[in-house]
Amino acid sequence: MRTIEWDNQNHNLQIIDQRQLPENFTYIKLDNYKAIAEAIRDMAVRGAPAIGVTAAYGMVLAGLHSTATERAAFLRDLRTAADLLEKARPTAVNLPWALQRMLRTAEEKDGSVDDLRAALLQEAHTMADEDVLMNRAIAEHGATLIEAGDTIIHHCNTGALATVDWGTALGVIRLAHEQGKGIHVLVDETRPRLQGARLTAWELQQLNIPYDIISDNAAGHFLSTGQVQKVLFGADRVAANGDVANKIGSYMLALAAHDNHVPVYSVFPRSTVDVSIPDGSHIAIEERDQREVLELDLMGRRVTPDGASARNPAFDVTPARLITAYITDLGVIEHPFSTTYHEFLQRVEG
Amino acid sequence: MRTIEWDNQNHNLQIIDQRQLPENFTYIKLDNYKAIAEAIRDMAVRGAPAIGVTAAYGMVLAGLHSTATERAAFLRDLRTAADLLEKARPTAVNLPWALQRMLRTAEEKDGSVDDLRAALLQEAHTMADEDVLMNRAIAEHGATLIEAGDTIIHHCNTGALATVDWGTALGVIRLAHEQGKGIHVLVDETRPRLQGARLTAWELQQLNIPYDIISDNAAGHFLSTGQVQKVLFGADRVAANGDVANKIGSYMLALAAHDNHVPVYSVFPRSTVDVSIPDGSHIAIEERDQREVLELDLMGRRVTPDGASARNPAFDVTPARLITAYITDLGVIEHPFSTTYHEFLQRVEG
Repeated sequence: MRTIEWDNQNHNLQIIDQRQLPENFTYIKLDNYKAIAEAIRDMAVRGAPAIGVTAAYGMVLAGLHSTATERAAFLRDLRTAADLLEKARPTAVNLPWALQRMLRTAEEKDGSVDDLRAALLQEAHTMADEDVLMNRAIAEHGATLIEAGDTIIHHCNTGALATVDWGTALGVIRLAHEQGKGIHVLVDETRPRLQGARLTAWELQQLNIPYDIISDNAAGHFLSTGQVQKVLFGADRVAANGDVANKIGSYMLALAAHDNHVPVYSVFPRSTVDVSIPDGSHIAIEERDQREVLELDLMGRRVTPDGASARNPAFDVTPARLITAYITDLGVIEHPFSTTYHEFLQRVEG
Repeated sequence: MRTIEWDNQNHNLQIIDQRQLPENFTYIKLDNYKAIAEAIRDMAVRGAPAIGVTAAYGMVLAGLHSTATERAAFLRDLRTAADLLEKARPTAVNLPWALQRMLRTAEEKDGSVDDLRAALLQEAHTMADEDVLMNRAIAEHGATLIEAGDTIIHHCNTGALATVDWGTALGVIRLAHEQGKGIHVLVDETRPRLQGARLTAWELQQLNIPYDIISDNAAGHFLSTGQVQKVLFGADRVAANGDVANKIGSYMLALAAHDNHVPVYSVFPRSTVDVSIPDGSHIAIEERDQREVLELDLMGRRVTPDGASARNPAFDVTPARLITAYITDLGVIEHPFSTTYHEFLQRVEG
């Protein structure tokens, strides 16, 4: 099953509850847009591409439950829903991108309110299918960079769970594995939410791809001792200059790779690029509840002293200078970015 | 009480059981050298200076329990004990340094086996007292570098718990705080053993020094957004060229500081320098049980999938080029190291 699936009979969205993995594989059903916003906020669903498509179905549900009979009121209800959904998580651009696309779909559709509802559902389905197709294109481009016997450090989770299906950076790894390249993955556990230790390890295990989990701290040691050939991670928002906002820790990982001449690839679909943002310093960095740091997992277990406090930024910015190439559905964009990245942006905008 | 205290009545060593903190403050009594080796191996006591002095008392216990009546046999028993104690943890040089010093004390002492026993106990006491004095000297030198209002990132634990008393890097922070400099500490939680979240946070709380715990991943974000003025950590072994082996993650932290022109200080007593090692690539890096990564804390709780495996190097090497200055009991050694660091080594060797 896909990470996100629309139930046409019951008019709700089924998602895999990622908070329960790897202990339990369970689904939850979301039947209104506020529940969708809450699922995104609480990270029942996470990963930039996955939250984009989830939010799109949130707009479908907002349309279904709107009591408006006239077009203007209906569009007003949609905008109210979009405002709430957009606030669920601020850093990944896929969320506002998906919401804008859904609003535009409704605005540009002629006909009755029911015609708009049908168009919204169709557009969400299209976005879900596009995501899978783009991930396959990303994998085809990216796998050409992976060499036989490579050991790859991967940060956070960018697999099927982070998308509608297949994955971005982990999709590249999956295809390289299926091509028989005999790769090995060092899985950054990815504190504080442990998406690596919990989700990426679980996905790699399903796919029979050899891996070892490492503490994020250990990446530098494996890189400096020549045990790693590639570093791969995703992206939540890419600025016009190529700076990449991604899961906290990506910047330090990229620094360590760069210091040891190991290539760093940021992997994402075209929708992750935000040309309205000149560089990474303008990207809003979400700071999440300090309990994610003070409590060691999602079960509320803590080892920190009573009264301890924490800071918890969920993303950081990796400057373009540290990234060897971007692996996108449009191809691999390599250094220097000054010409080819501009071409990429033109294609994105076009 | 000190982290390590000799009980003269009962002839055993009392140590704070650091595996139980911050939940429980408990002591354990160690009455033979094999129990000392096990306490070091299992990290009931940890921190390079603390394990050096603990091992010295291990030699005292080996002497007390030796049944030898002749000098040669007694020294043989001591060497057997030293061999076992040295293997407990391979990276920190303080361990072999302390053992060699104790062996030399016995070898150079004239008199009966009981005279040797008395000399060993006296030497261990001297080393414990020296450690506290050196830490105070380190703090006096280091505190001059701390400016009012500094926010400092600190890695692992280098406080009273990592030493006999007072601490090294955390001792600098403590003195700067007592001098009223109004500092704030960002405490790297320090995966996988969480010495920051468990021990450093606990010590800072006792001392009323303001702090926030952060995931190690987050250090780069705070550094790149201008929120940090200094980075401080200890050292487990410093090579002749100034490369520093320290707790895993120190290298990535130093890279992130260096990338943002934030000074990095490695803080240690003279006994941490190993002039027999030309550079960091020759330092043995301990790899510990993978359960430390797979299990989230010390209680055996795991969130990783069944069948998951992990790699767990416990230290890494920070190249000298990333370190702004060394804070030692002999003073602050600054760039360029080519002349002053050599002088420092001459003083250490002399």
